[in-house]
Parts: sequence; C-alpha cells; structure tokens
Amino acid sequence: MSFTNEAEIKKEVERQFDILKRGCDEIINESEFKKKLEKSISTNTPLRIKLGIDPSGTDLHFGHAVPLRKLKQFQDLGHQVFFLIGTFTGRIGDPTGKSETRKMLSAEQVQENIKTYLDQVSLILDLDKIKVVYNGDWLEKLNLEDVLRLLSQFTVSQMISREDFAKRLSENKPVSLIEFMYPILQGYDSVELRADVELGATEQKFNLLRGRDLQKNAGQEQQVCMIMPILEGLDGVEKMSKSLNNYIGVKDSPNDMFGKVMSVSDDLMYRYYEVITEVAQEEIAKMKEEINNGTLHPMEAKKRLGEEVVKIYHNEEESKKAREWFENVFSKKNLDVDLPEVELEYKEIGVIDLLVRETGLLSSTSEARRLVEQGGFKINDEAVKDVKAVVKIQNGMVIRAGKKKIVKVK
Amino acid sequence: MSFTNEAEIKKEVERQFDILKRGCDEIINESEFKKKLEKSISTNTPLRIKLGIDPSGTDLHFGHAVPLRKLKQFQDLGHQVFFLIGTFTGRIGDPTGKSETRKMLSAEQVQENIKTYLDQVSLILDLDKIKVVYNGDWLEKLNLEDVLRLLSQFTVSQMISREDFAKRLSENKPVSLIEFMYPILQGYDSVELRADVELGATEQKFNLLRGRDLQKNAGQEQQVCMIMPILEGLDGVEKMSKSLNNYIGVKDSPNDMFGKVMSVSDDLMYRYYEVITEVAQEEIAKMKEEINNGTLHPMEAKKRLGEEVVKIYHNEEESKKAREWFENVFSKKNLDVDLPEVELEYKEIGVIDLLVRETGLLSSTSEARRLVEQGGFKINDEAVKDVKAVVKIQNGMVIRAGKKKIVKVK
Repeated sequence: MSFTNEAEIKKEVERQFDILKRGCDEIINESEFKKKLEKSISTNTPLRIKLGIDPSGTDLHFGHAVPLRKLKQFQDLGHQVFFLIGTFTGRIGDPTGKSETRKMLSAEQVQENIKTYLDQVSLILDLDKIKVVYNGDWLEKLNLEDVLRLLSQFTVSQMISREDFAKRLSENKPVSLIEFMYPILQGYDSVELRADVELGATEQKFNLLRGRDLQKNAGQEQQVCMIMPILEGLDGVEKMSKSLNNYIGVKDSPNDMFGKVMSVSDDLMYRYYEVITEVAQEEIAKMKEEINNGTLHPMEAKKRLGEEVVKIYHNEEESKKAREWFENVFSKKNLDVDLPEVELEYKEIGVIDLLVRETGLLSSTSEARRLVEQGGFKINDEAVKDVKAVVKIQNGMVIRAGKKKIVKVK
Repeated sequence: MSFTNEAEIKKEVERQFDILKRGCDEIINESEFKKKLEKSISTNTPLRIKLGIDPSGTDLHFGHAVPLRKLKQFQDLGHQVFFLIGTFTGRIGDPTGKSETRKMLSAEQVQENIKTYLDQVSLILDLDKIKVVYNGDWLEKLNLEDVLRLLSQFTVSQMISREDFAKRLSENKPVSLIEFMYPILQGYDSVELRADVELGATEQKFNLLRGRDLQKNAGQEQQVCMIMPILEGLDGVEKMSKSLNNYIGVKDSPNDMFGKVMSVSDDLMYRYYEVITEVAQEEIAKMKEEINNGTLHPMEAKKRLGEEVVKIYHNEEESKKAREWFENVFSKKNLDVDLPEVELEYKEIGVIDLLVRETGLLSSTSEARRLVEQGGFKINDEAVKDVKAVVKIQNGMVIRAGKKKIVKVK
C-alpha cells in the first residue's frame, strides 16, 4: 500500500505510531520516530527494526515475549525486522542487572542455544519473514585497530555511569574491562545493521543509546530506542524469571498456561492484558469498568485472559479445552480429567517436604507452612492442617496446594 | 665467560646487581632480579631486557638517556637488549603524566619519528648489538577475540587506580577508553618478548606491572620492573623537557653541552654525576668531601662533569676543546673564539624583547627584567640596566645574559 496524499500519510503515521507505542516504557525519541515513520510511509521503504538476542541459553517466557510481540507488530505493519543473534557478544555475556561477571560461552554452546531459541521464537514470529543475522559475521573480522577506533569514542566516566557498573564499583565488586565492550559492540551492531529502531528492556537503555552515539559518529541517522517494560512475574512483584519460578513459558502446555494466568492478582491481570495480548485498549478499559460496577466477575475476565494467551501460543481449540479442564478441576472439582502427574521418591514424607522438595508445588518452606496452616493443602480433597504430619504416598493420590495447583501421584 | 663454581656465581650475581642497581628508583623485586641473574650466569643465558619506546617524535635529551644508559650497562654485562618500538601503541599515545588525550599518529609519522629516534639512540647504544623489535608486528594481528581475552584479565578499579587516570577522573576530565589499552598492550608486549626485565620511568610503573600480570596469566616467569628516576632539568626543579627549555639534548654541540652543565646548581651537579655519567660512586663521594672541606672548588667539579658528558656524546678531544672555549669566553672573557651566532629581525629593539623574543636567551619577561635590573645583561661587555632601553643592533655585537649565556649578532 502506498500513500501519496500528505494528509493520508500523516494519518498513517499516527496510526502506526499509536499501535507501536502501546506497552512501551519510553521511546527515544518520539519525534524522531514519527519522522522515520513518515519517511518510511511516503517512500514506501520499510524501517529496519533490530532486536538483539544474547544466546545465553534460556527458555522463553512471557517476559521475553514482550519485545518479540512488539516486533510482530512492526512486521505486520510492513517493516523489516532483524533478529540479531549475538553469536559473538553472547560469548562475552553482559552483566546488566546482575552482580557477577558471566562466564564466556563456548562457540558450540552458543550454536546449541540459538537453535533452541529460534525454535521457541517461531511460536511468536514467522521466521521466514524476518532476517536473522549473526554479529559474529562482522565482529569476528574486527582487528585491534578497529577496536581502538571504537574505544576512542567513549570515555571512562560515560561507561561507569551505567547503573549496574556504578553500583558494583561502589560496592567494591569487580567489573571486568571486557564488560565495557558489551555496550560498545551492541552499539556497533546497530551501525552494521543501519538500524532505524532498536528494542530493548529498561536495563538495556544504556546500551541502546551507545548505538545512537556510534551511528552519529559514523554519519548515520540515529536509531530510535524503544524501551520495553520488564514484565512482572506471577507474584506481581518480582521480574518474571525462571529462577524465581514465577513465569509462564511460551512452551508451557495449554493447561499450565491457563492455570498460571488464573493464579495472578486482578491488578496483574490488567497489566498482562495490556502487555501480552492484542486485546484493544478500549476493550480492556470497558472490562475494568464492568468489573468495578459489578457486571463482570473478575474470574470471568481472567478466564478470558487465559483463553487469549493459549490462543496466541497454541490455538483456539486448545484454549477452549484448557478452560474446560480448569473449570472441571478447580470449579466443578471434577477430577475425572487428565491431571499433571508426579513420580515421588519417598513412600512416607512430611507435608512441608512433600510440597516444596518433592512436588515443587511451592517454592519455600515458609510458604508451605502458611498454606498448610490455612487449610490449603489437601490430600484427595481432605485438608491436612498439621505442618508436622507425615503423608503415606499412594498411587493415584491427588495433592492440592491452594486453589490452582494440583498433581496426581503416578 | 662462564662460571661453574657456586661461590663465583654468587659473587658475579652481586657484582652485576650492584652495577645495575645504581641510579634505579626501585626494582620490583630485588630477590627475583638476583634469581634471574643467577640463572643467567649459571646457565650462560643472557637475560632479555626490554625498553619500550613510544615513537611520538622527540629530540632525545639526557632525561631520555637515563634508561638508555642503563641498557648499555646490561649490554656490557652480556645481556640481550630489546629495543621495543611501539609502532602500534605509539599511534594511540599514552596520556601518562599528561592531562589530555593524545592524538593518534599516522603510520607515516611513526616511521619518520623512529628513524630520527634511532639516529639519536646510536649516540648511546651500538644499534648492531641490540635487537630492535616493533610491536606492530604482533599487535596488528590481534583480533577482537584476542583483545577481549586481554581485557578480561583486568578490572575497571585496577585501571582507574592509575594515578593520572584517578586524577583526571576526579577532576571530571575525560579519560578515553582507548587509554586503558595502552598499559594492557604494553604488558602484552612483555609476553610476546618473554621479557626478563623491563625498564621504565616512575610514571610507567603501573604499565610495567601489567606486564607481570599478563606474563603470570600466560604461565611465564614474571618480568622484573626496573623503575628509573625522572631526571630534573637544568633548573633543578622541573622534569627535564624540551617544552620547559631546561634540557641538554644528546645532539647538542660540545660547547652547548658543556655550557649547560656549568649552569646547574651544586646539588644538581652531584645528581647528574650519579645518573648521567659512569664516574664511580666512590669518586663522587670523594669529590663531595673535597668540596665540603674546601680542597676542591665546585667550579672545577662542574667542569669535570662537563667534560664527562661531552666525552660520552662526542669524544675526549671535543671535551677538552669545549672546556677551553668555556674558560676563554666566561672566565678569561676572551671573545676571540667562535661564539654562537644569531640573526636578528629588528634593527632597533627593547632589551626585554631582545632577550626573550629575539634571541631566546631567556624564556620569560619576568626573568629578563630581573636579569637586566641586576646588571646581568651586557652589550659588548657593558651592562644595560634600564629595562626600557632600546638597543640599536649592529653586526658583531656580543650579547650576554648572565654568566653563562652569550651570543654574537651575525
């Protein structure tokens, strides 16, 4: 589609801008972004959108999916998405937000991780439509003189102003010089790609801005930095992460995905609607209103959210089934359905150990203790309230932890 | 010569150690140095001695000569001297002791500077006996991965502890990241050279120690760092440097060299004896005693120093002639000898301008003013004490500034 009428172009700029702005924490900067969109639309030239991926070996969860879904919007609007795999930089590792220097990955490990990664990404993006590039292709060719030219464009003060570097230095924790290279090389990738837009989470802002520096010095138009929010985990407090076990994985089964969505708070439900679905803003606002005036039950809104996400990562049929399964098990208490099964090592075990160590239903003993005391721990639908009770394990035994977690002993 | 007897070896170690220790500010560390000497002597394997030269284009003066003369001692003791020309690092420039980041030199400029440099070095060292190596030979081959491996061996805190970096950072003056590379690459040169000893001035200590770090990590024996003093200029206060015009150049004429030596204070005279000549320590001590008890006139000791240095950089005959010339002009006031000539632009000029701008005999107007007022400024041996006087310039006119500076108008 091409636009020739100036008013039409302006309208299209606003339309694309509104779609793309949704869910962003910050755009640096909005006026440059509109100019780029205008140029793109009027000359019918797609913008070059970059997302850098550090292939450090991770199972994709909904937190990772936030920028990936933004890329999909760009793609749907006709822009060219570049999926930049940090084959080289991934071997350095960026300490962003972490307190320790990462270990260097081997070339083989990186290759393995990329494969797993792209496999998961294909659930969100059509890999055929995007360009996958590897920064090893150009970074491996850099020699010392090239590196020095890059280094000469930055000062020490600039680097140590990055929040996590500053923090670690002030705590007398080591910051390896190699870590300074990460933001610089990430910036250099933008020069090589001639990126118009780079996406990244808040903690990536410093690095994204270095791309602007290097592009400017290289005489290129500076990229727009699109800062994406960091998604809260199921607890609504911590960042979603595998290690905190508060995540929904993009490869989770329909039932798991649906069940995890059902466990979030009402506030977090709105946030998830906003950031991880495509449901229109107006619809979300309407839903909120209906819940507030009592015409819609929050549980129903949450079930719709569950259906939405299962639809995205699986399909409509699976989403219906997941809802049915959930309603059977948790609402109608009908256990005549497939339940997640666990195999247990011990034949007799204390309730706290059972909940935390053996089944992994809960992640801390204090949480387990609280649940048991409040009657949320049930064996075959019978509450066990004694934290010191020992359970005799039998096949087919159904264990519940609270309203949303259930397993059957194999 | 080879030593087999353990006692002989020990004696030889001590002998070499005493010779080499002379004039050093610090040896890191002495016991390692003795061990290296012992191994060298007992296995008849010369030590590998490194002096790095930054070819930033400089006229060699006696300050530069300090480490070069130390290299000569190593050479004379049979060790292998490596003259490391920083063809690569010289293009970065090290800000040591300076407050601003240096400009990168072009490859051509570096080549030109090396030529001029070696030409001057040949006045002190026999170029045929030393190995001249160029760090461009290995540094040009480093790729990004190699650089990262080097960077990973150092932390930010370590780098910013270097005095000049710390100072500039605390003053909010920029320190370019490229400057961190200088000490690292200098250290890497030691790994490539498998250096046993590296020489450098006090301000180089940090960089020399980085060589030890990298050698250790590379599984090599660590180099001994031999820290040489920074030579005071003729004023006895500031570091000898061309820009402060307080230097004796290795290419200065015999008369200039002799005259400049005669202008130093008695204290500085002892220092120069110690650092820039080969006169034995005992002889210097004896001389000091004789001056103190009045049996030797300081002027005579200074004339001997003048002869010594002219002998080193020219020859014995020239040193005698320089002494005669000096005595004729300054002691016997016999001007019937060759005097340094100047060509002047103006035919009439104020005395202060004449001393500072036109002849360059003095470097500041305040100095000139003081000299004139004290009667030290003479035209054809007649004092002119009026600072506002205007001098009519004539051919053959002899101009004196103090006791040691004299020129004749061409």
